[in-house]
Amino acid sequence: MRQVLAFILFLLGAALAGGARAETGYDLWLRYQPVEAQWRERYAARVTHFTAADGPTMLAAAGELRRGVAGMLGYDPARREAVTGDGAVVLGTATSPLIAPLGLPLTRLGAEGYLIRSAVIQGKRVTVIAGNEEVGVLYGVFRFLKLIQTRQPLDGLDISDAPKLRVRVLNHWDNLDRYVERGYAGQSIWDWQKLPGHKDPRYTDYARANASIGINGTVLTNVNANADVLRPEWLAKVKALAEVFRPYGIKVYLTARFSAPIELSGLKTADPLDPQVAHWWKAKVDEIYRVIPDFGGLLVKANSEGQPGPSDYKRTHAEGANMLADALAPHGGTLMWRAFVYAAENPDDRHKQAYAEFQPLDGKFRDNVLVQVKNGAIDFQPREPFHPLFGAMPKTPLLMEVQITKEYLGFATHLAYLGPMWEEALQADTYRPRKGMTVAKVIRGVAGVANIGSDMNWSGSQFDQANWYAFGRFAWDPEAKAEPIAKDWAAMTWGNDPAVTGPIVAMMMASREAVVDYMTPLGLGHLMATGHHYGPGPWVSDLARPEWNPVYYHKADAGGIGFDRTATGTNAAAQYAPEVAANFADRKRVPERFLLWFHHLPWTYRARSGRTLWDELIVRYDRGVDAVTGMEASWKALEGKVDPRRWAEVRDFLAIQRDEAGWWRDASIAYFQSVSKRPLPAGHAAPAHELDWYKAIQTPYAPGNGK
Amino acid sequence: MRQVLAFILFLLGAALAGGARAETGYDLWLRYQPVEAQWRERYAARVTHFTAADGPTMLAAAGELRRGVAGMLGYDPARREAVTGDGAVVLGTATSPLIAPLGLPLTRLGAEGYLIRSAVIQGKRVTVIAGNEEVGVLYGVFRFLKLIQTRQPLDGLDISDAPKLRVRVLNHWDNLDRYVERGYAGQSIWDWQKLPGHKDPRYTDYARANASIGINGTVLTNVNANADVLRPEWLAKVKALAEVFRPYGIKVYLTARFSAPIELSGLKTADPLDPQVAHWWKAKVDEIYRVIPDFGGLLVKANSEGQPGPSDYKRTHAEGANMLADALAPHGGTLMWRAFVYAAENPDDRHKQAYAEFQPLDGKFRDNVLVQVKNGAIDFQPREPFHPLFGAMPKTPLLMEVQITKEYLGFATHLAYLGPMWEEALQADTYRPRKGMTVAKVIRGVAGVANIGSDMNWSGSQFDQANWYAFGRFAWDPEAKAEPIAKDWAAMTWGNDPAVTGPIVAMMMASREAVVDYMTPLGLGHLMATGHHYGPGPWVSDLARPEWNPVYYHKADAGGIGFDRTATGTNAAAQYAPEVAANFADRKRVPERFLLWFHHLPWTYRARSGRTLWDELIVRYDRGVDAVTGMEASWKALEGKVDPRRWAEVRDFLAIQRDEAGWWRDASIAYFQSVSKRPLPAGHAAPAHELDWYKAIQTPYAPGNGK
Repeated sequence: MRQVLAFILFLLGAALAGGARAETGYDLWLRYQPVEAQWRERYAARVTHFTAADGPTMLAAAGELRRGVAGMLGYDPARREAVTGDGAVVLGTATSPLIAPLGLPLTRLGAEGYLIRSAVIQGKRVTVIAGNEEVGVLYGVFRFLKLIQTRQPLDGLDISDAPKLRVRVLNHWDNLDRYVERGYAGQSIWDWQKLPGHKDPRYTDYARANASIGINGTVLTNVNANADVLRPEWLAKVKALAEVFRPYGIKVYLTARFSAPIELSGLKTADPLDPQVAHWWKAKVDEIYRVIPDFGGLLVKANSEGQPGPSDYKRTHAEGANMLADALAPHGGTLMWRAFVYAAENPDDRHKQAYAEFQPLDGKFRDNVLVQVKNGAIDFQPREPFHPLFGAMPKTPLLMEVQITKEYLGFATHLAYLGPMWEEALQADTYRPRKGMTVAKVIRGVAGVANIGSDMNWSGSQFDQANWYAFGRFAWDPEAKAEPIAKDWAAMTWGNDPAVTGPIVAMMMASREAVVDYMTPLGLGHLMATGHHYGPGPWVSDLARPEWNPVYYHKADAGGIGFDRTATGTNAAAQYAPEVAANFADRKRVPERFLLWFHHLPWTYRARSGRTLWDELIVRYDRGVDAVTGMEASWKALEGKVDPRRWAEVRDFLAIQRDEAGWWRDASIAYFQSVSKRPLPAGHAAPAHELDWYKAIQTPYAPGNGK
Repeated sequence: MRQVLAFILFLLGAALAGGARAETGYDLWLRYQPVEAQWRERYAARVTHFTAADGPTMLAAAGELRRGVAGMLGYDPARREAVTGDGAVVLGTATSPLIAPLGLPLTRLGAEGYLIRSAVIQGKRVTVIAGNEEVGVLYGVFRFLKLIQTRQPLDGLDISDAPKLRVRVLNHWDNLDRYVERGYAGQSIWDWQKLPGHKDPRYTDYARANASIGINGTVLTNVNANADVLRPEWLAKVKALAEVFRPYGIKVYLTARFSAPIELSGLKTADPLDPQVAHWWKAKVDEIYRVIPDFGGLLVKANSEGQPGPSDYKRTHAEGANMLADALAPHGGTLMWRAFVYAAENPDDRHKQAYAEFQPLDGKFRDNVLVQVKNGAIDFQPREPFHPLFGAMPKTPLLMEVQITKEYLGFATHLAYLGPMWEEALQADTYRPRKGMTVAKVIRGVAGVANIGSDMNWSGSQFDQANWYAFGRFAWDPEAKAEPIAKDWAAMTWGNDPAVTGPIVAMMMASREAVVDYMTPLGLGHLMATGHHYGPGPWVSDLARPEWNPVYYHKADAGGIGFDRTATGTNAAAQYAPEVAANFADRKRVPERFLLWFHHLPWTYRARSGRTLWDELIVRYDRGVDAVTGMEASWKALEGKVDPRRWAEVRDFLAIQRDEAGWWRDASIAYFQSVSKRPLPAGHAAPAHELDWYKAIQTPYAPGNGK
């Protein structure tokens, strides 16, 4: 016995030594670490064995259950053909022999919903995880495991849930050479060179992570599209990915370059009303569906930032979209069409252009078209008011597009939890057709520009994983709240100790507002350096197109600062419902967070604090920097309470963020002071360097900047 | 007791479940997996505790000892101030208080050698690991751990070893935006954007892996150099890496762009004889050493493939190199200067150009210059005869440059162990000044173009790790043999079971010859597709420079095939020592592996097999494909004997290799047959497609192809 014990202790030591391998973050929120002893017995009694049918999705669900139980409870639960005792977990659909007799209220849950219920089968206490389709069972298993991950009881369960939005997709801005536009997490995880011959196990982990939060589609390629992905040898690679994702309920989509018929087949035109063009696309789509029968559809960025599109042939966006939609319709495919357009030759406020171009097309799109609208009218800024198209196209299904990758919020090294930003956008009231019609209520789905890459931690930083996670949660339920999502993520990712999750959630919830404060306070926007958007560039005024220049956005001069989008200016505010417009256009009623977005105001204007606008601006910059300093202190206090490798990474990144927040603050103040000629308020330090010093900073190798 | 046991079993299960996390290859040959029970007790008795002084390198050595013992033996050995019992491991230098009295024969081992000896100290049986410098102790610890990894006894040890070459460096062809030229393992591991603020733990693992095989320097940047790395903000990043590597005995080097004075400081010239230019470099080098006091030196690719250099100013390579060497000399820095030159305007055989340009400069270089010569005269082909400069520059210290990354050997997915290739090059007899003077004997160091990237497995494939490993072993001892190195690597990487290592070593040892056979048999070379060098392109004849075209190299026509480098041709053979030249120039004496490298022969020429040259060529192609099929079968037989994730990856890659070997074979035969108009010998299948089918294959996104 003693010898046995000694050998077991040796194995344990060796295993722990192996396990002492530091955490890298690869496991995301699916770490499945051993639960505390007091919980283990309770949980083990509820997972003694399980039943499940065969089939790829059921195998994925069962596999996840086994993985979670092995990690958290320390054993491999047996799969049995029948319930053989208390503690069975019964996986199945409404028609499963063990589940059908229970008469569960599944119908109202739709194709993707699930139900988790404590029940009695053949006199044994069991937990049923059921859905109408197998994917619902998979979602239910993730929810069941989350109960253990977050230390909830498994007794008397009666949980049911279903996604509120049908379309929940990631957009990968990934090029065929693995470069990721606006990517800060390494190369694309799609290793095209080795596909289809090698399916990296990482693809499965990607699918698991997405399924765990209900994401049901992924657009594999960049919206700045490359027609080559539509070639047969590339479709074979796409097929291989689709095969990995299928059991996890994830469909693949591709971006379509509008000029593909010219580039791939030498057609003379890509005019959507040309029958040859329509025929080409129909044949191409038929070919895709022969290869991938459950292909999701196509996403198009047209006539935007140099991309080809129907306007090249004097056709409307609707005419372009409908031609592709007609090719997809027989296969049940979806056509996603981006509303992100602004024209070089159009001198009007960029804020207004998408609305002006798309709103008149309402009702002109085919049923299987989704118009994809960014959360704000400009471009994924730290803060923007909601896009005026939301609510303005009642006959057109809209997707809200958000950017999970932090192009404008400090790349990978700034901690910025985007949950509050998305909650703010989703809860914005469009007043169309009436009060209470929030963005959340008018959209049919959400598309998120992925922050996923080949970095070991997937997202470029530990905390950026939270944005992937939160995106999925908001896509599942656009009425969700950012804070409970942060709590769930923190508990699963960093452990259940409230002394850990408390400070982490507090950091997260304040983090995006800090970025707004030190980059673009009071409704300013788009002040980033050119191209890569890394660091401040409020002085930039020499770019070819006016709306690429930060000075276009802040309009600071000796008299004041801000963009007049009221009737005395561009009147962009008038694109909103009258109630919203009246609010935004009134400098007294507009939320101060949007003040300079809609108003050009004198430096001496009185902010609600009673300070002058100039002084208020400085106070906000300093508040942002102080918030980062505070996050650093909170994190240092967690040393030893989380695993050392991930802790050190976050510590380093917060130090970088603190430096860069100071850079933003100092460079912005140095520039605006050169315009306003006003002294800093008492107690606020002068920038560390002269303005020219900041202007001289060049970072040509900052990542993510196209090519 | 039973409860304790139950809880221990739970922890063990949980740990194993966590450990059941599949192996990715991240741990390289330093996996430190638990040893079998029969070995564990024997080893544990020899490592009961250890002694070591403080200091970064000793801490690194002690840390590695603890890591290895924890993984393999399951406990954390205690560090003690004194030997307190049998089984101590005594780490230290010749002057360590415990070691000095032993009077060990350390002097002859130099700064980097080490000695491992079983000894008695204060009546206790101990193992001493000693070096003259601390880095020797670190090397000794890796050797000691390797004894356990490969199941060698730890009794009666008397091992001493020292590197035979002083310079053992990796060359990273890594750009500042993390693109790796000729990289097939993801992005550069240097995450410049996050440096110096964040030192990725991977940098430490990189240093550990390199130190374990004795690599003592790393050139961080591409030889196609970017002057920006010499800017102060970049030197701060380089400094951060140097700090990580320093305890591991690894110096950092940078590539110097010869025109940097113009690009960074607006000088009018980069003429090496211009005093302003020399002054600029001296000041720049002084600045580097202020930041990194133990900086290794600079590496220059000059007047080669578009890079600037002294020839731009009608100066010699020696004049260019010496100017930089003079700047480095006061700091003890080294200047590495590549001999890889060939000129667009020079119509002479590319094979001859480096020799013609460099040999006359022998004796004209400063003492701290190392001339870096590729193993062969062309460019890292699957097989080349040794470079004629070896032995031809007796007054100039030469480095041999090899390519660890497989630009010309199938990228990441072809299994090709390069040990036999390097052994072949190193053991080639230069006959200068006399028989027996092999390449191994005339070089001062080795530089290897790294195959390291951000892929989880570091090298793009599991087996490519073996090439990194073997490079270090050959750099340490150029007289080493490829097979025992393969055995060591296989045992450490895949496990000690001879039923595993036997087939693996057999696969490895035959693998490079297989690539030669299916790509470039019988002394052919450089037949790869343009630019990326992925796949066959023997028909390519339309590139701007003649020596970029495969047809330049094979010279196949209706009459025959091969490059006449004898006196009737370019007479490149005459650049070798007379004995070697006579051998190469004689079609009867030249080794058949170099036949077509030196001779243009009729298709009807009789190979040593008695077959016609044409038939022999076909036989070789098929032999290569068959060898890959054989490797596939060997590997399939190992299923279940190695961990499943790595096994599956290798299985997939071998299938890709089999397909691509067939592609090479078929495309090459289709093309050569279109020239030779000869029928295939009986029993050899016709290519699967017509020649045009192969010519139409385009792979524009193949990795690694510059930008």
